[in-house]
Amino acid sequence: MTILVAVRGWKPDHWIHALRQAAPDRTVVLAGDDFDPAAVRYALVWKPEPGYLKTFEKLKAIFSLGAGVDHLTTDPDLPDLPVVRIVDPDLTGRMTEWVVLNVLLHHRRHAHYAAAQAAGNWRPLRQWAAGAVRVGIMGLGELGRDAARALLALGFKVNGWSRSEKRMDGVDCFHGTEGLAPFLAGTDILVSLLPLTAETENLIDRAVIDALAKDGPLGGPVILNAGRGRSLVEADLVDALADGRVKGASLDVFASEPLPAESPLWRAPNLFITPHVAAESDPVALSRYVIGEIAAYETGRPLRHLVDRRKGY
Amino acid sequence: MTILVAVRGWKPDHWIHALRQAAPDRTVVLAGDDFDPAAVRYALVWKPEPGYLKTFEKLKAIFSLGAGVDHLTTDPDLPDLPVVRIVDPDLTGRMTEWVVLNVLLHHRRHAHYAAAQAAGNWRPLRQWAAGAVRVGIMGLGELGRDAARALLALGFKVNGWSRSEKRMDGVDCFHGTEGLAPFLAGTDILVSLLPLTAETENLIDRAVIDALAKDGPLGGPVILNAGRGRSLVEADLVDALADGRVKGASLDVFASEPLPAESPLWRAPNLFITPHVAAESDPVALSRYVIGEIAAYETGRPLRHLVDRRKGY
Repeated sequence: MTILVAVRGWKPDHWIHALRQAAPDRTVVLAGDDFDPAAVRYALVWKPEPGYLKTFEKLKAIFSLGAGVDHLTTDPDLPDLPVVRIVDPDLTGRMTEWVVLNVLLHHRRHAHYAAAQAAGNWRPLRQWAAGAVRVGIMGLGELGRDAARALLALGFKVNGWSRSEKRMDGVDCFHGTEGLAPFLAGTDILVSLLPLTAETENLIDRAVIDALAKDGPLGGPVILNAGRGRSLVEADLVDALADGRVKGASLDVFASEPLPAESPLWRAPNLFITPHVAAESDPVALSRYVIGEIAAYETGRPLRHLVDRRKGY
Repeated sequence: MTILVAVRGWKPDHWIHALRQAAPDRTVVLAGDDFDPAAVRYALVWKPEPGYLKTFEKLKAIFSLGAGVDHLTTDPDLPDLPVVRIVDPDLTGRMTEWVVLNVLLHHRRHAHYAAAQAAGNWRPLRQWAAGAVRVGIMGLGELGRDAARALLALGFKVNGWSRSEKRMDGVDCFHGTEGLAPFLAGTDILVSLLPLTAETENLIDRAVIDALAKDGPLGGPVILNAGRGRSLVEADLVDALADGRVKGASLDVFASEPLPAESPLWRAPNLFITPHVAAESDPVALSRYVIGEIAAYETGRPLRHLVDRRKGY
């Protein structure tokens, strides 16, 4: 009944500690430690070494630590086992905080007021009501729907776009390739919460940017990305910010992370950068959640929030 | 049936225009224009010259353009007429946007990330969940209750403090002088939406600041003021920001506006300044609202949202 933790890119110490506290009766081991591979039943992973997971013969299920699963679905040797995407209210709420904060930063002209303050200037601007601003959310899964609810409650108009048809009260929903152009034409602030798949890679390029509404109350379109960095063509955004085709942007994810020192994004105008912290996983909350899911599974309940490998999310 | 507009401090042109559009059958005049004072029945005012309103013998009601009414109640010659405080969902929603934006700016460590970005540094911090942060709202009228609802929906814990006892689902409510100390001791982010009265003037001083929770997740208390500038002792906030007893602050209102160039607030650390724009009145929406209230009053319905002059709000 051993649980394996295999992560790359950050230190797993606090995960190990939180898991051991949440499940004192189980053995929790870390990739690289000395343990019996045949005892491993469950793996909690983030960007594991490709091919590593297939070395555990009695593995029953894989849990992805974080909302995205592209770090797993790109492993050609991934064993044919259930892959669980962690859907946890804490993580969803954190993403909604980031989306609401960044929509409001642009809507309420924070860059203007921060610059005025730095210069010691009192410079009020006329302010549009939220109801005059159309936020378009790409990706209407758990994260997108929760962000949409919060934005609707603040009075914004909300559009949604997804790969397959979805419905949501109060949201104008578009889908598929044909739905993209009308969705973009009615969007003042674009929010991407898309997973990374073959279809979403480089999806937000110059053509998509130039199809956004130009006549909105913010003086030009705004782009937010907290999904995956590689769904946005960064050079196209840098150009659009420089020549004013895009009025502002907020990015939490990047094609390469940490964002390289030489990236022109660091110095692009009207851009807010956060270092992939929009929806950090909380080890204590998520450890309890994962241990609870494992316990329920062992009493016969099916695993929830399984990844569809063909779709890639 | 003349409607008078009397404002000081900003240009009323767009108000006149919006009122004439909302009521093409009425005469709309501006203080200082040439008109018959005996024809004036209603006045829409903001900081009118003290004594000015008593010169209209047939005036029936006074509408205050903006949420606060201290600009009227301090006029010793104010005629004994109904004073209507404009309560309009658009204005309330704008105030809630400002409160949510500024709570999230501090909760999500915007000052840290803005500085890191300016230096080209990737510096993620651990982030607390909203549920670990206690926001304390002073003033539980229309504005305070709407802000509380929005913060609760984002997962924050919310406390409230008001002059007289109030109740609200999901909010720990305190009131009066005895309720102040326990309210402050359980507050990480203080939000003042208080009106200016004899009791609230200079209320938020060094003693109040030092009574806020010190052990919260943000590393110290945060203070937001979008009520009235003179309810906060600015010098005490400047001192507390300088020596770290207050971790951050956001101010939209000031004892003197525009904020004088020599004010030390301009250069205080971890402070976000906006130039009294948190809840700007939208002329078109409010003109329609006021004209609708006047029309209903003339058909016999009592005026709503009347100011209690003894209380001062």
